[in-house]
Amino acid sequence: MITVKEIAQMCNVSPSTVSNILNGRPNVGEETRQRVLEVIKETGYQPNYFAQSMRKQSSRMISILVEDLGEFSTPPIVEAAMAYCDDMGYRAILMNMRLYDKWQKDWYDDEEKVKSVLLPLIQEMQSIRVDGMLYIAGHCRHIDYFPKEFKLPGVIAYGLSENSKYPSVVIDDEKGGYDIAQYLIEQGHERIGVIAGSDMNLHTQSRLTGFCKALQEHNVSYHSEWVRYGDWKRTSGYKEAAYLVAQGVSAIFCMNDSMAAGVYDYLREQGLAVGKDISVVGYDNKDLAAYLYPALTTNEIPLRAIGQKAMELLIDRLEEKDSALGADHLVKIPCNLVCRESVKALKK
Amino acid sequence: MITVKEIAQMCNVSPSTVSNILNGRPNVGEETRQRVLEVIKETGYQPNYFAQSMRKQSSRMISILVEDLGEFSTPPIVEAAMAYCDDMGYRAILMNMRLYDKWQKDWYDDEEKVKSVLLPLIQEMQSIRVDGMLYIAGHCRHIDYFPKEFKLPGVIAYGLSENSKYPSVVIDDEKGGYDIAQYLIEQGHERIGVIAGSDMNLHTQSRLTGFCKALQEHNVSYHSEWVRYGDWKRTSGYKEAAYLVAQGVSAIFCMNDSMAAGVYDYLREQGLAVGKDISVVGYDNKDLAAYLYPALTTNEIPLRAIGQKAMELLIDRLEEKDSALGADHLVKIPCNLVCRESVKALKK
Repeated sequence: MITVKEIAQMCNVSPSTVSNILNGRPNVGEETRQRVLEVIKETGYQPNYFAQSMRKQSSRMISILVEDLGEFSTPPIVEAAMAYCDDMGYRAILMNMRLYDKWQKDWYDDEEKVKSVLLPLIQEMQSIRVDGMLYIAGHCRHIDYFPKEFKLPGVIAYGLSENSKYPSVVIDDEKGGYDIAQYLIEQGHERIGVIAGSDMNLHTQSRLTGFCKALQEHNVSYHSEWVRYGDWKRTSGYKEAAYLVAQGVSAIFCMNDSMAAGVYDYLREQGLAVGKDISVVGYDNKDLAAYLYPALTTNEIPLRAIGQKAMELLIDRLEEKDSALGADHLVKIPCNLVCRESVKALKK
Repeated sequence: MITVKEIAQMCNVSPSTVSNILNGRPNVGEETRQRVLEVIKETGYQPNYFAQSMRKQSSRMISILVEDLGEFSTPPIVEAAMAYCDDMGYRAILMNMRLYDKWQKDWYDDEEKVKSVLLPLIQEMQSIRVDGMLYIAGHCRHIDYFPKEFKLPGVIAYGLSENSKYPSVVIDDEKGGYDIAQYLIEQGHERIGVIAGSDMNLHTQSRLTGFCKALQEHNVSYHSEWVRYGDWKRTSGYKEAAYLVAQGVSAIFCMNDSMAAGVYDYLREQGLAVGKDISVVGYDNKDLAAYLYPALTTNEIPLRAIGQKAMELLIDRLEEKDSALGADHLVKIPCNLVCRESVKALKK
């Protein structure tokens, strides 16, 4: 890679003149400035930010890179991560990849699309000279998009790192599924239907694993025909509720609150009362859960806790409190079951 | 990271040929162009924005400064503003003041608090050398915190600029209040109660002005005792509903959806049916509005349109398409009345 010294030689000026120009200092004649900038442009010179920040120590600035700010889970994670930065005397800036906004779901298996957005942002992080990066996924996936040459310390939140350098902080979906099944069993339910998310989704799979584990531990038999796969939308909750009610379940565990609302829609239409005739549990604890009638029992995702923990890991790394963290370092944060009025205790 | 010079060597062309291709100049043969582009793609070369911005004296980077990312209105404004940046070849970074998260409401009249957060961010914008700033308020207020020495071109969204340099983009709250009153009158309602927001709030005041104007134009008398001031929370909707129902109103206009949900709570408790016995209208069109039963008629705030328009004004200024814009330049974006099932048409 070309150096400041080489550019200086090419332009017949001193290295400090080149440095003055690069740093925007005014003490250089306009003609010289233009000539040097032209050479810089032609050579594609890239300032060596890593050497610079070693020299200057650290910028104490962190970049928070989000897959999409429009996902409901992202702003609270960001807010808590930024709060932790403030407390620790770091500054944070956010960069938004807008992957869902640009392509809906059409980027999940398309690394080219992701990289077309990610690589310019990596360049930008380098030119702003951030100390580290927090990457926030829009939903849980295996994440491995970062080029090998990209050396910035990082942590991944809400997604699973496949990069040996980056630890991850995710929700404990298996425990989430387990807790809901256990709660329903404790309330006397043994015929429990599930409206899962899409079947290849990692949230879906882990929640289902936990659900099955709880049934097994409590000697409740598992009926695979009572597990239906939805698409996370209200309409699919409505549709699958019709099937499950016909199967005679006494409770339905929905893997998000929107699908639970679809179950409410179906039950109301059938003249069945939620929390009396059929019990319903959701997942997420979005705002709407408290506004449904009756209010929905659901598993709150600890978004702020995820943001705080992820930033804590990152700053620990920056301050070399635990430099051994890698992709094998995985923190799972448990969800909080919020009990409202949509589950009936059955007499045994 | 690979440089233009290295790409030139790999392709056996001069660096300026590579540069011409990268900059879309036509003076290169098609065969060469294809060959060089192929190498560029294979190597994953990224243009050196830093050197580019030195040359053009512009970073093509915009800072979006938000009062609080946790406010429901902020993420959609940001997302649309960033989409517009992407379309126009600008990059955007977000900085979050976290004013509500830090101090709830205790900063509204405390310029010291605001400046303690704002001034370091201004410093940061200058050190990153952004071209311009979009400032997004958490709710509508008069905004004038920027130091005189701060010369960056800017636009204020969701708040009213008091700074002669900055135009504003806000919602048209007066029209919003007018439209709701007119709609209710058209549906045959003349006894309309209002659960307003807090009384000094600009949203409250403008919506009430529009509401009164519509009554007057339609010769419906105004009863000041039917206007109650809430605190934007569900519980205050519940409380004021009790008062208004006792006054014999046939419809209640709530200045946000959460207070409308509180009205639903009260009416349900009294055995009254929303949309049959009493009509209810909300404001905001938050997610919850569609999940209430019956679904809430409400005035959707065009958050994405605000973000896009504000960024459009800013980039126009940066590109000197309209350099005369100042604080007197105020764009008001109308809300969209979303009619669902909470309003009954009365027979006249």
